[in-house]
Amino acid sequence: MNGAESLLNTLVANKVEVCFTNPGTSEMHFVAALDRVPKMRGVLCLFEGVASGAADGYGRIAKRPASTLLHLGPGMGNALANFHNARRAKTPIINVVGDHATTHLAYDAPLTSDIEGIAKSFSKFVVTPKTPNQIEPAAQLALQAATMDQRGIATVIVPADASWNELTPEKSMDFGRALWNKEVETIETIGFTEMKALLERGNETMLLLGGQALSAGGLRSISKILSLYNVSILAETFPSVLERGGDLLSIDRLAYLGEMAVAQLANASHVITIGANEPVSFFAYPNTPSQLAPANATVHHFIAPNENLLEKLDALCDYLGAKTPLAKVAYQTPELPDGDLTGTKAAQTIGALLREGTIVVDESNTSGLFLPSFTKGAPAHRWLTLTGGAIGQGLPLATGAAVADPNSRVLCLEADGSAIYTFQALWSQAREKLNVTTVLFNNQSYAILELELAKVGALESSPSARAMLELKPPSISFSQLAQAMGVGSLTVRTVSELAKAITHSFDSVGPFLIEAILPPGIS
Amino acid sequence: MNGAESLLNTLVANKVEVCFTNPGTSEMHFVAALDRVPKMRGVLCLFEGVASGAADGYGRIAKRPASTLLHLGPGMGNALANFHNARRAKTPIINVVGDHATTHLAYDAPLTSDIEGIAKSFSKFVVTPKTPNQIEPAAQLALQAATMDQRGIATVIVPADASWNELTPEKSMDFGRALWNKEVETIETIGFTEMKALLERGNETMLLLGGQALSAGGLRSISKILSLYNVSILAETFPSVLERGGDLLSIDRLAYLGEMAVAQLANASHVITIGANEPVSFFAYPNTPSQLAPANATVHHFIAPNENLLEKLDALCDYLGAKTPLAKVAYQTPELPDGDLTGTKAAQTIGALLREGTIVVDESNTSGLFLPSFTKGAPAHRWLTLTGGAIGQGLPLATGAAVADPNSRVLCLEADGSAIYTFQALWSQAREKLNVTTVLFNNQSYAILELELAKVGALESSPSARAMLELKPPSISFSQLAQAMGVGSLTVRTVSELAKAITHSFDSVGPFLIEAILPPGIS
Repeated sequence: MNGAESLLNTLVANKVEVCFTNPGTSEMHFVAALDRVPKMRGVLCLFEGVASGAADGYGRIAKRPASTLLHLGPGMGNALANFHNARRAKTPIINVVGDHATTHLAYDAPLTSDIEGIAKSFSKFVVTPKTPNQIEPAAQLALQAATMDQRGIATVIVPADASWNELTPEKSMDFGRALWNKEVETIETIGFTEMKALLERGNETMLLLGGQALSAGGLRSISKILSLYNVSILAETFPSVLERGGDLLSIDRLAYLGEMAVAQLANASHVITIGANEPVSFFAYPNTPSQLAPANATVHHFIAPNENLLEKLDALCDYLGAKTPLAKVAYQTPELPDGDLTGTKAAQTIGALLREGTIVVDESNTSGLFLPSFTKGAPAHRWLTLTGGAIGQGLPLATGAAVADPNSRVLCLEADGSAIYTFQALWSQAREKLNVTTVLFNNQSYAILELELAKVGALESSPSARAMLELKPPSISFSQLAQAMGVGSLTVRTVSELAKAITHSFDSVGPFLIEAILPPGIS
Repeated sequence: MNGAESLLNTLVANKVEVCFTNPGTSEMHFVAALDRVPKMRGVLCLFEGVASGAADGYGRIAKRPASTLLHLGPGMGNALANFHNARRAKTPIINVVGDHATTHLAYDAPLTSDIEGIAKSFSKFVVTPKTPNQIEPAAQLALQAATMDQRGIATVIVPADASWNELTPEKSMDFGRALWNKEVETIETIGFTEMKALLERGNETMLLLGGQALSAGGLRSISKILSLYNVSILAETFPSVLERGGDLLSIDRLAYLGEMAVAQLANASHVITIGANEPVSFFAYPNTPSQLAPANATVHHFIAPNENLLEKLDALCDYLGAKTPLAKVAYQTPELPDGDLTGTKAAQTIGALLREGTIVVDESNTSGLFLPSFTKGAPAHRWLTLTGGAIGQGLPLATGAAVADPNSRVLCLEADGSAIYTFQALWSQAREKLNVTTVLFNNQSYAILELELAKVGALESSPSARAMLELKPPSISFSQLAQAMGVGSLTVRTVSELAKAITHSFDSVGPFLIEAILPPGIS
């Protein structure tokens, strides 16, 4: 057995059974070993940002790691943006990267680069086994790092000779060179007594929920607490997975735009985070504070990073005697509107048609502003968001989610500017016949940046600046783009066309892309 | 004047007049300042890997830096692979990256990441001015670093508040925080006497040329030396720019495949590098050496990294009394073949049709194996290659080259697997009406990796491994892809169709893509 096979065996023995690959020469022994370890499913991606985003989507839905297989430093560079999002989502991933043979590194061959240095920026843990025998212990450590406490990305850098050489009989605990990042910081938390006292203050206390608190189980515990205490609640802006709809407690998210977020928090004198970070603005602006809570408010934390959130919430409910969830509030499912599409009407249409069990991947940005309110009354579904703000996430994330849960339909809500970063994901969707319906909102601009440019006082009189934010000329045909990659598609301009196309795709198998033409800007 | 405007003013005052942009919120003041500094031409790219590759192409042709404008760490991550190629090409580039406001960094907002750590992997120099007044001196240092000695990438990380705040009247030499990479190493060189003695040994001495030695001026000096000494010559495998054709000295390149390279060097007992690196294999393989020169050969260096190569070659010619170049060898221009296309016939067709002044961007990989020999007899042209081996370079490189030299036609020879990484470049080509003719070789596979997989002994009997190297199913329509991005295109299957399409595009203005359907593998 060579090192590559040892790595694959270790991964599948630990239930890592999917590898999103974009290999090169230095990974060829890993590729060759795929036929000897058939439990590992290789999913070819045509760009590394698709592989990293798909591994993120897979991990969020399967709740266990997928692996990636990438080619040296530049290949991993292409994967970096979506690894950044996965890091913020705390998604467990085993990132396997090939390197030159240890004997070859000294010669500074053209593809040589500082893989460890780049990997450190997004990984919890980086390990470089130098021999075939070091590979298993290195992979075991990586698995542990990826799945313990705050989950994250563990990178295993495999020199080509560690991959191609045969193992020797000696057992070893040596794992090569390892770097740990200090991601898990200790934070001070409040105890049950203090929590109870804060809950008794009523709606001047705000619970800010994130992570596992936004799972069905977490929301049920929160609902029980709300049946006793009239406190306010908000979800973090960009949850990894937010379970919603059906009989689940409905919760608004902290707004992306700072002004709106400040308004949401304005009445809070105490903010208690439960699995969320302290509320800070996405970007800074001149003369506005980075912290969103009112200056006189106190921020408390209920959960430490290494604590089991769901167990601690259960224990809190027991302590409080909170046993019955709030009665379900019945939100209305919106009626289908009619006429030409706008962003608002598209959101309304999706709210009217959303089906039970759907996995919604939301990178709709400005086009999706009205989605949360129109989908409140929908049947139970999961909502995945752009956790790290690095655009180009949606199509890959949807790809990985569909691999993780082939029995559910994935509805990918995607902005035009973001889609174009990683549209290669469509090819993998077609190849693997994944059940992904993409609604592509085409408003021909980076509308979010037009907002931002207006804020700095430049817009009407600034043709050069504006030109940097417009996705035309030329206009991109996303419908044609999808067909070129093997995914069926349709361009729609009216509500009834959109509704028909969504229903058609929901009733079919495999991927489909619907290009929804919207007016420019926010509509 | 705010910091952003100060940066733009400093750049244009130093003849950096193009910025390949993919901005976000933290760069909005730089974008807004474009209208106040009209000398800077902003070229919008829809993906950061297009911006970095275009800056590389621009720098190689214009011989001065373009700038890039990127959004935080993840945006720069997307640009990393083509920055890696630019680093290997020694292309001068000013890479401007926005960061959060200095006051915002402490809050670890979602898009926060280690920008310096990532930039170090490909930059000669990284500087982070923290105030508006530090921006000009920081930019000056970056310009110096990018253009001195071994040229390279200088990264300027601009916090949003340094960008938006107004300068104060004090002049300062303070430039914030800077990191230099030790790219320029001292190497021992041989003097003129030793050089002469080695030249006198005749064809057991091999001159290995790279960098400026492959410019028209460098090749003329080499030609003069060859008129006196019967030594062997080779060019480095992947030159930044190789000037060829017309009355220039024709030179073979060191082969990419190790076995072939070893054969090319087999008779050398002395290898003298002139602007090239020591010959090492691209990848390592079990039981083959990394160094390509015979074990008993000695490798010498003629040029130190901080020396002016062209001046030193001139001085050598004076010393040797080498005054007259070799008589021009007239290579035949190939005849147009006929019938269905193969890789060989496509190369022959290109050799028959290549026009004077063309800039050839070559990322044809296995499909382009026969291009060098068929284009030997062509009129004078420039040949740009994949210097760092990170695929996805061709379309962006062609884009930047066409911006740098709008009066020449760029012929981009592109492999299918590589094109799909950064095909977003086509949109910028259409938008800027650039004179780029792309011939896309579609053999529906990563043929280079099929070669590599065969080498590790897995191929026929390894369906899972093979599937990782095939670009179907589904087949990608590159012709349709181009049209979706606003570039006219045609699919061709025969020599006469290809010839007609190339001639049509050469006679037109603006970009065009020709999808050449080839048999699978190398043909």
